[in-house]
Amino acid sequence: MPTLAEMLYAEIRKVRVIDVHSHVRQGEPCASSLRDILSYHYFTELAFSSGLAKEEMAADLPDDRMIPALVEAMARFDNTVQYGWLIDAARKLFDLADHKLTADNWRALNDTAARKLGADGWMDEVLRRANIEKVFLTNSFFEDLDGFDRERLVPCLRIDDLVFHLDQVVDQLSDRGGVSVSDTGSLKKALAAVVDYFVSHDARSAAISLPPGFTCRAVSDADAAPLLATALKGKELSPADGAALSAYVLYLIAENCRARRLPMQLMIGVIRGAYRHGVRQGTDIVSNRDSLEQYADLFNRFHDVTFTVSYLSTTMAHELLAYTWIFRNVVASGHWWYANVPGIIEADMRSRIEALPRTKMLGYYSDAYYVELALPKFDMYRGCLARVLAGQVEMKRLTEADALAVARCLLRDNAKAIFNV
Amino acid sequence: MPTLAEMLYAEIRKVRVIDVHSHVRQGEPCASSLRDILSYHYFTELAFSSGLAKEEMAADLPDDRMIPALVEAMARFDNTVQYGWLIDAARKLFDLADHKLTADNWRALNDTAARKLGADGWMDEVLRRANIEKVFLTNSFFEDLDGFDRERLVPCLRIDDLVFHLDQVVDQLSDRGGVSVSDTGSLKKALAAVVDYFVSHDARSAAISLPPGFTCRAVSDADAAPLLATALKGKELSPADGAALSAYVLYLIAENCRARRLPMQLMIGVIRGAYRHGVRQGTDIVSNRDSLEQYADLFNRFHDVTFTVSYLSTTMAHELLAYTWIFRNVVASGHWWYANVPGIIEADMRSRIEALPRTKMLGYYSDAYYVELALPKFDMYRGCLARVLAGQVEMKRLTEADALAVARCLLRDNAKAIFNV
Amino acid sequence: MPTLAEMLYAEIRKVRVIDVHSHVRQGEPCASSLRDILSYHYFTELAFSSGLAKEEMAADLPDDRMIPALVEAMARFDNTVQYGWLIDAARKLFDLADHKLTADNWRALNDTAARKLGADGWMDEVLRRANIEKVFLTNSFFEDLDGFDRERLVPCLRIDDLVFHLDQVVDQLSDRGGVSVSDTGSLKKALAAVVDYFVSHDARSAAISLPPGFTCRAVSDADAAPLLATALKGKELSPADGAALSAYVLYLIAENCRARRLPMQLMIGVIRGAYRHGVRQGTDIVSNRDSLEQYADLFNRFHDVTFTVSYLSTTMAHELLAYTWIFRNVVASGHWWYANVPGIIEADMRSRIEALPRTKMLGYYSDAYYVELALPKFDMYRGCLARVLAGQVEMKRLTEADALAVARCLLRDNAKAIFNV
Repeated sequence: MPTLAEMLYAEIRKVRVIDVHSHVRQGEPCASSLRDILSYHYFTELAFSSGLAKEEMAADLPDDRMIPALVEAMARFDNTVQYGWLIDAARKLFDLADHKLTADNWRALNDTAARKLGADGWMDEVLRRANIEKVFLTNSFFEDLDGFDRERLVPCLRIDDLVFHLDQVVDQLSDRGGVSVSDTGSLKKALAAVVDYFVSHDARSAAISLPPGFTCRAVSDADAAPLLATALKGKELSPADGAALSAYVLYLIAENCRARRLPMQLMIGVIRGAYRHGVRQGTDIVSNRDSLEQYADLFNRFHDVTFTVSYLSTTMAHELLAYTWIFRNVVASGHWWYANVPGIIEADMRSRIEALPRTKMLGYYSDAYYVELALPKFDMYRGCLARVLAGQVEMKRLTEADALAVARCLLRDNAKAIFNV
Repeated sequence: MPTLAEMLYAEIRKVRVIDVHSHVRQGEPCASSLRDILSYHYFTELAFSSGLAKEEMAADLPDDRMIPALVEAMARFDNTVQYGWLIDAARKLFDLADHKLTADNWRALNDTAARKLGADGWMDEVLRRANIEKVFLTNSFFEDLDGFDRERLVPCLRIDDLVFHLDQVVDQLSDRGGVSVSDTGSLKKALAAVVDYFVSHDARSAAISLPPGFTCRAVSDADAAPLLATALKGKELSPADGAALSAYVLYLIAENCRARRLPMQLMIGVIRGAYRHGVRQGTDIVSNRDSLEQYADLFNRFHDVTFTVSYLSTTMAHELLAYTWIFRNVVASGHWWYANVPGIIEADMRSRIEALPRTKMLGYYSDAYYVELALPKFDMYRGCLARVLAGQVEMKRLTEADALAVARCLLRDNAKAIFNV
Repeated sequence: MPTLAEMLYAEIRKVRVIDVHSHVRQGEPCASSLRDILSYHYFTELAFSSGLAKEEMAADLPDDRMIPALVEAMARFDNTVQYGWLIDAARKLFDLADHKLTADNWRALNDTAARKLGADGWMDEVLRRANIEKVFLTNSFFEDLDGFDRERLVPCLRIDDLVFHLDQVVDQLSDRGGVSVSDTGSLKKALAAVVDYFVSHDARSAAISLPPGFTCRAVSDADAAPLLATALKGKELSPADGAALSAYVLYLIAENCRARRLPMQLMIGVIRGAYRHGVRQGTDIVSNRDSLEQYADLFNRFHDVTFTVSYLSTTMAHELLAYTWIFRNVVASGHWWYANVPGIIEADMRSRIEALPRTKMLGYYSDAYYVELALPKFDMYRGCLARVLAGQVEMKRLTEADALAVARCLLRDNAKAIFNV
């Protein structure tokens, strides 16, 4: 007999999801091979961390050396949800019958994956099985947004480079902006042109990840001008000056988002490159010292811009709850990266559902590089949601109908309303 | 068949509660209308946060415009415990039969509420239904404490103004203190007179809310004197000087509390006015950077004064557990405001019950403005307590009798012992 | 009918444990009396904190005054797991039939304990009943490590004194090191000699507890030399200089650990002596401001040294999860002191089991002073583990076999692999 959580899961599974953040690329939304999937940093970093040499995962190794080495290493973390994503995807997409990946079954899986991944209409099939309607992309500001189904794969402007590495991308910005960026005036024109291009190409948000310690504050044109000039000369700014220039650019972009009613997605709190010995994409870390206090000025000043906010450190979970509670323009969003763990998700989700309007939460996004991995990640989340909602029903706080209304908001309705899709 | 949690709830419901902190006013302990209740900031701030315009809740709007607008907005947070408080109060006090407040049923509820709220003995009836014996008040230092049943509504001296805004209240302090406050000597006399007045009028605690970053430390009379002089001239102090003067006044009051064996209630960690656009009482926020380290000097120096402590940020939950564990004069108290969420309460309560003497915890206080809302808030807490205790019984750590002994301590016995009521 | 958690507990109970950190002393691993056990600071500090006068626990009081006073006081915390340890030990080792310690039963327990504690082979009997194979010790660097069964009681080099109080122990270091420590060169020789002695005597780790705010960083010999000279003259260093010297010594020891493949156990975040009025060992506290960021340099620089890490503040739980996830040389270890509470353990353990390779976690250590208390502490932990694993099985994330494989790693296999025992 199914439990209440299982019954709710079955209903929740019927809600067609909007995936509001991913790294799926419009030109290559699907993996091309099992190895593509196995190379996801969630797998390689745990393999490395638990003892596999980097050389055993090198890009130039043939499949029949790299894959078995990785498969063997993965057994050391077959207790994890990350491993579970792989098995779940393999079972639901590539007909794996087992519950472990082994030296004995990987070749057959590899063959099946190759066959399916090459088939026509595979992306649609994956999204159908995953019950995902739309997937938001992560697009660099200089990308071409023509030539794909933008209703299905929704463009989003990623602004990290503009905010944190303007000097490195100024030529591309000049190109895209149609103006030679040389001062604050031309910078504003170029940024406006970028946002215009994205909005005219159906972009639905601007997104950025931010390091701990980043402080949002207004910087005047006059104060920014010399910093910008120095940066454009290729000279290094002091940390304080760099932070001021970053805040300046962020606020310029926020003004454009306000003018065009574009929500901003903030992913707060990652230290990049903290582990010198890690594998690719496995060198970043979290800090428990980050605080939303540093965003209060942004939220106040742009009180008419919607900010959907994810934290990396669970020490911000309660702040985000309270900010979403009070600030009209703040929405609690997803469970990002190191916080994408059921024990963390469920504790946080329970408090959110108990204390926040159901219209002010985005439940989850996949953060996936290929749609194949969006499937098991969302299914993991759906399980969390079903368990938490079952708890609410069992304590007689919500009816089953109430619970499913919350689920629809978290998975679909709020994303549609907030991002206007 | 009732679950163990339900059976424990039924027993817990029989414990007559002491509500050790509220904003109930002796002159107007009950709401005068449904609208009074609906205007509780927990409702208006969520309505605003989820989209209702402030103008739709304006004080000068007639009931039949304001109430339906609010009722409609509240549907967006009918998943929350805050909404649940309203429904629970309406059902238990005003005969609401439904589980939602709607355009169709609010008028009848409004009428029933008006009739009941105006009846003789209504407060007693509410407290009887809520099974609350005593409600602690929040009294300004200059209030008149005569003319009400001080056994039922227990006076408490609120000292925020004295500590943080002395310059603004010095005239009232001079009045109440019977001395013109002009220097540290007259300040001490006036504060002693205030505490004497309160103690002689059955006050049972001094209470204060404190901002993140506030540091308790001894400031000498000599160091305080020039700061006080500057403040009394109406001149602004630097943040550092203001903090020193606040610490000085707090310690003066703590000395009076020691001399009169008056416990102090500390509510730690609120940033006032952080959201510029919020509704009344909906502009304050929490910070994850606050620490009890800043209170260690107070707890050490006044080791013979009892401090009952609540945190606003859950990042202090574990510190409070450890401080209560070690410091004889620290008591873990309640679940305040943004931490007043079942998911947060239950996690924290479980650890407290597992690690702290049952005599060193105050379970809950209502923080309510009207007694009508103390009822559902305490019932929510009783549910949390029943679930956590059921978990302890199910894991065979406590017997049912043990569990109920803990419940009696948390809801009643400790408050009676600590505050001598 | 037993629950799934109870069935898993029964299986988990069969895993023979390696206790990787304790304060058991090789010369006196067992208590000599009931009073020895009752004097454990977990009991005396809670008795004091909840009201017992220190004088009532004074060392020079006769048993029949001290024990009944303590027993009476302990009733105030008979809800706690700490109290549960005592009862569990008394029932499993000393034939107590009751579930409370009372004025009526303590004498019989005292007599039984005296008889058993004096018997030949008692330690082996305790470890057999506890199903503990090996217990790691905490040895000062100048201790003699001959004359006991080092396979059973495993030496560990405790380095707190060397890192934080070098000036106070320099004579002992010179003795042990066989060189007069007077400068950085002789300091290095002496430290190498100490580590050599320990390794040659089967030591399996170096261990240290560190205060909040301690920052790991490389300090050059040239920078350290004058600081060392000042310290060796018995002059006080400034806090900054003291911190630099501590970091210098820690890194010297880490270099020795690297050379000898000795893992380091870090216990991070205790403020010593924060409560001036507490009982012995009951004056230390936790800070929520500590961060693993301060250890990133150590983990990077000594990327080939294994660090098993425990935090004192739960605000570091998520950081430790993420560091263990990414850093190959970081292992999440145990649940220390103020974090040794089932509610805290289970929440953290669930996330660890969901997100970390099972090979990168050490489940628990007793931290006990006598083996008698290692028994109930490990049984408490086994209960936590059984409940968390049952949850994973019930949500169909792990099979029972998977769950037990995790348990074996946490309790035994990882300790054997990491510490090479």
